[in-house]
Amino acid sequence: MSDSTPPKHTWFHDALTPDLGILHRVEGFLYSGRSAYQGVEVIKTRSFGTCLVLDGKIQSSEADEFIYHETLVQPVMIAHPEPRRVLIAGGGEGATLREVLRHESVSEATMVDLDEQVVNVCRQYLPSFSDGAFDDPRTEFIVGDARKFIEESPRTFDVIIIDLPDPLEAGPAQALYTREFYTAVKARLSTGGIVSIQSESSRWYDLHAFAAIVHTIRQVFSCVAPYQVHMPSFSSLWGFSAASDILHPEGLTCEDVDLRILQRLKSAVRSYDGRSHIGMFSLPKHIRSAVEDARTVITDDSPLTVF
Amino acid sequence: MSDSTPPKHTWFHDALTPDLGILHRVEGFLYSGRSAYQGVEVIKTRSFGTCLVLDGKIQSSEADEFIYHETLVQPVMIAHPEPRRVLIAGGGEGATLREVLRHESVSEATMVDLDEQVVNVCRQYLPSFSDGAFDDPRTEFIVGDARKFIEESPRTFDVIIIDLPDPLEAGPAQALYTREFYTAVKARLSTGGIVSIQSESSRWYDLHAFAAIVHTIRQVFSCVAPYQVHMPSFSSLWGFSAASDILHPEGLTCEDVDLRILQRLKSAVRSYDGRSHIGMFSLPKHIRSAVEDARTVITDDSPLTVF
Amino acid sequence: MSDSTPPKHTWFHDALTPDLGILHRVEGFLYSGRSAYQGVEVIKTRSFGTCLVLDGKIQSSEADEFIYHETLVQPVMIAHPEPRRVLIAGGGEGATLREVLRHESVSEATMVDLDEQVVNVCRQYLPSFSDGAFDDPRTEFIVGDARKFIEESPRTFDVIIIDLPDPLEAGPAQALYTREFYTAVKARLSTGGIVSIQSESSRWYDLHAFAAIVHTIRQVFSCVAPYQVHMPSFSSLWGFSAASDILHPEGLTCEDVDLRILQRLKSAVRSYDGRSHIGMFSLPKHIRSAVEDARTVITDDSPLTVF
Amino acid sequence: MSDSTPPKHTWFHDALTPDLGILHRVEGFLYSGRSAYQGVEVIKTRSFGTCLVLDGKIQSSEADEFIYHETLVQPVMIAHPEPRRVLIAGGGEGATLREVLRHESVSEATMVDLDEQVVNVCRQYLPSFSDGAFDDPRTEFIVGDARKFIEESPRTFDVIIIDLPDPLEAGPAQALYTREFYTAVKARLSTGGIVSIQSESSRWYDLHAFAAIVHTIRQVFSCVAPYQVHMPSFSSLWGFSAASDILHPEGLTCEDVDLRILQRLKSAVRSYDGRSHIGMFSLPKHIRSAVEDARTVITDDSPLTVF
Repeated sequence: MSDSTPPKHTWFHDALTPDLGILHRVEGFLYSGRSAYQGVEVIKTRSFGTCLVLDGKIQSSEADEFIYHETLVQPVMIAHPEPRRVLIAGGGEGATLREVLRHESVSEATMVDLDEQVVNVCRQYLPSFSDGAFDDPRTEFIVGDARKFIEESPRTFDVIIIDLPDPLEAGPAQALYTREFYTAVKARLSTGGIVSIQSESSRWYDLHAFAAIVHTIRQVFSCVAPYQVHMPSFSSLWGFSAASDILHPEGLTCEDVDLRILQRLKSAVRSYDGRSHIGMFSLPKHIRSAVEDARTVITDDSPLTVF
Repeated sequence: MSDSTPPKHTWFHDALTPDLGILHRVEGFLYSGRSAYQGVEVIKTRSFGTCLVLDGKIQSSEADEFIYHETLVQPVMIAHPEPRRVLIAGGGEGATLREVLRHESVSEATMVDLDEQVVNVCRQYLPSFSDGAFDDPRTEFIVGDARKFIEESPRTFDVIIIDLPDPLEAGPAQALYTREFYTAVKARLSTGGIVSIQSESSRWYDLHAFAAIVHTIRQVFSCVAPYQVHMPSFSSLWGFSAASDILHPEGLTCEDVDLRILQRLKSAVRSYDGRSHIGMFSLPKHIRSAVEDARTVITDDSPLTVF
Repeated sequence: MSDSTPPKHTWFHDALTPDLGILHRVEGFLYSGRSAYQGVEVIKTRSFGTCLVLDGKIQSSEADEFIYHETLVQPVMIAHPEPRRVLIAGGGEGATLREVLRHESVSEATMVDLDEQVVNVCRQYLPSFSDGAFDDPRTEFIVGDARKFIEESPRTFDVIIIDLPDPLEAGPAQALYTREFYTAVKARLSTGGIVSIQSESSRWYDLHAFAAIVHTIRQVFSCVAPYQVHMPSFSSLWGFSAASDILHPEGLTCEDVDLRILQRLKSAVRSYDGRSHIGMFSLPKHIRSAVEDARTVITDDSPLTVF
Repeated sequence: MSDSTPPKHTWFHDALTPDLGILHRVEGFLYSGRSAYQGVEVIKTRSFGTCLVLDGKIQSSEADEFIYHETLVQPVMIAHPEPRRVLIAGGGEGATLREVLRHESVSEATMVDLDEQVVNVCRQYLPSFSDGAFDDPRTEFIVGDARKFIEESPRTFDVIIIDLPDPLEAGPAQALYTREFYTAVKARLSTGGIVSIQSESSRWYDLHAFAAIVHTIRQVFSCVAPYQVHMPSFSSLWGFSAASDILHPEGLTCEDVDLRILQRLKSAVRSYDGRSHIGMFSLPKHIRSAVEDARTVITDDSPLTVF
């Protein structure tokens, strides 16, 4: 007998666009609340297990978060010759931190997230996401506005990982997808550093956000490689960007990647290896074309809004 | 902060027929389990508050259960000159019992329900439904098969109220909608007694069950009056039958009913009065015609099944 | 092989409120367009056959339009001693006109509807709705604004029937649900005349529009009788008002009504008779209470908007 | 004004699994019928334009069919040194044929499809799919059972493309996903030939069909390369297999592919090029692992069934 199992025929409707939605059969409700910044829920779906839901949209699921978080973190960490100091902007679930800490080279992992309630809810209801990462002595967790931290801190980092929720209209993340923000990020990067950026859906019929983010980053960094992976719980391809002035992760060979994983990672990863690396940077022609055609530069005055 | 509030965009789908369904926005989940007989859940919908759900179908809601239970109980109680001993077959929520006990004349209220878990869940999560009725000294609550009790008991009752869930295929209630069952019910009635029977939806496009139940009861009792009320949480009209060999509740005037309510009821009712009584027995012509045209007699060998 | 049958698993979603919706399985699409005033569609649902849909909401269906139109028209026509001149405001489907013309006493039936396209679509795709009424020599059909006609015409009518779509925000019907409009209607009534007014849903959980309409009409007429019927294709009770300064349709007996039907109607009606009449004016106590509690007066400056 | 545009709020529900569904907003209905083998419909969705629907599932859409058909056809055509005679099993839309005929080397393109009605409907409602391919003098179109043709024909082909609908329970395609069928296909291959096989969804949470198909093909061919692409209108990754005893398409370099496209194709392709080729054969580790772990061999006695 459980207090949280919903009846038959209960569905969670995840609206991808006004014209396309996903229906997830729901098995349980673990938490629902509202932080100072957003609606925060934890539900259990039949297909993907326990899921974090922010402002009515599924953010990550127990079943496939490893795909998202390994893809966000590992390509840039592997591309860097020796990442020691790493900054995470956002990353409330703690799984981005977990992926960073797999690297023996890392001596300091600093995470700045606005919404402590999301962090606490995830640690309680989705403990496998952080898997002890907040207790790691190398971890520094700061509750605060990542943009303010990045603009004001004098520190530099070898790798910076931008792991933020969707830029919803007037939402807390909207100011962290602009040229001004990326310029501030670059100022925090040590020489030879690299950045990884969650870059929204790379669905063929809905590429404007991904294309605009990539194009905006290109105004700031000289080497920008868009890449993607399929996220089952989003029923969607998901886009990322690797940005640097020196490093070219897309140039690594399958063998390079597999060797570095072997040398550097303390524990096994499930989704990422040399072959996966090649695949994620090899966008198909129709997606590459749409990304190359983008002309929108996202700025503080003209921010990006997604549905 | 609540453990049971689901995220935005969660819907409960109540299928009325294979071709017509109702979507209820869900606000909370209070209980989910499975008794020996059926799925038992308690959910909270935005439109109707806390609801009992059995086998995936909404049975009753906090917002409008008073309509159903007053309509099931009061017309036959008021039609009887002095109901003292009352039997309830089913009635797990306890609200039918509550309505019976409003009558000062009642000295014994016997309720026989198969599923003790439903009773306990309702007492815990929907306490306003029974409102203390199980603790009334006049109440006798028997966990057991109502048909078996009715067939084997030597006792007689002035009023018998049949308050059972839908006759689902191979479900626990299917044997309690047959001519043989109604014949056994009649044998338990004291002289001048009357029976009220939950008789399924009286929706115009889906009248076969209501019409068949009324027609079957007419094989057993000489005075049978079908009646109905609109149940908002079912998005449907709901049918009932009053059956007797002597009493004609449909012949009471508005003034008769209002006077008896004043004389007999200890507490106010919200939906039922003389005018409501007239309305509920005045079925429109198109529904009356369909009910009069019924030829199906439900028997143990040829039971009724609803979707 | 048909050009208009949609595939399996296609559903029309009729939103009753933001928290409650009806899913109709769709079998066919016959027409879709946009008039100068509203979206106009004709679909075929599995449960209710061919349906007229205006601005995304089902207005009437082949299966049950007779319930709506007989209920709107017959009680006031029967209550009037000899209706000769009848005005219909709205009524685009032509079925209200059909019901009026059943009466042998009628010498002139004037219908004023804004949206000629709705009329034409209904005549083509739902010919049984008007059933030849537009070709009756007693019919005068005027394309125009019913409020303007009522305010400017010098003519008077024995019966006026207000058959308008929902007062949607900024929609064409909003100005025809106000005290000022009802005052103008009264000025067009001959001595001893009576009005019937489509008065929105009388669902228990959503009574504000019905209650406000009835209360507003009561500011203008001294005898106002709210009444209702269950409309299966709306999954809802539907409210109407009879308004007069002299006539009391709710005082007619079952026998009065049946006799007048026999004497006056040229053809049989399916839903309306004496018993139906008694039922429709006998609102249950909980709905009567809510209607009596209304304090909102709808005016041109403070119009009614429904979802 | 169109006869086929459905009203607002009409949704097509594409059930991916019993627990996960996609809702497509529908804009129009162009055709609905039933062939001797399956339900055949053509709908227009807001997101993907005109779509072919077989047995209630979207098969291909105007917006993204180029992705599917280029991915099914081009990798094996490009891998073959000089494809002259090509056989297509299935391929009713005609778009597979269109892709084959782009190659100047092709002298004979033979297509065997059971369901002439699908072919005719697509030629009428989706003419861009075949784009004149049925009128190409190199085309031979045979209406018939592809398995029977393959088992009985004495002819051999350089490339064989298996483009069949899902193996639904007892459906027409179920016998064309078995070891016995693939053995028969191999017998029709000329020396050095290669086969491309539509291999069902490669969604992470629903890989059993893809994995079983790949494993079964490996019982018959010595070089089998699974590959995939994201199909937006399926909200899913989609799997394919290239099978040969000699050719290794996954070994081609980006430059090899781009050069061959330049040399051999008469017209431009939108989704396929060297970089796309590398990406589609670089399955991520978690999908590769699941495919490698498969142990199910599909046989005539133990066929594959998908939801």
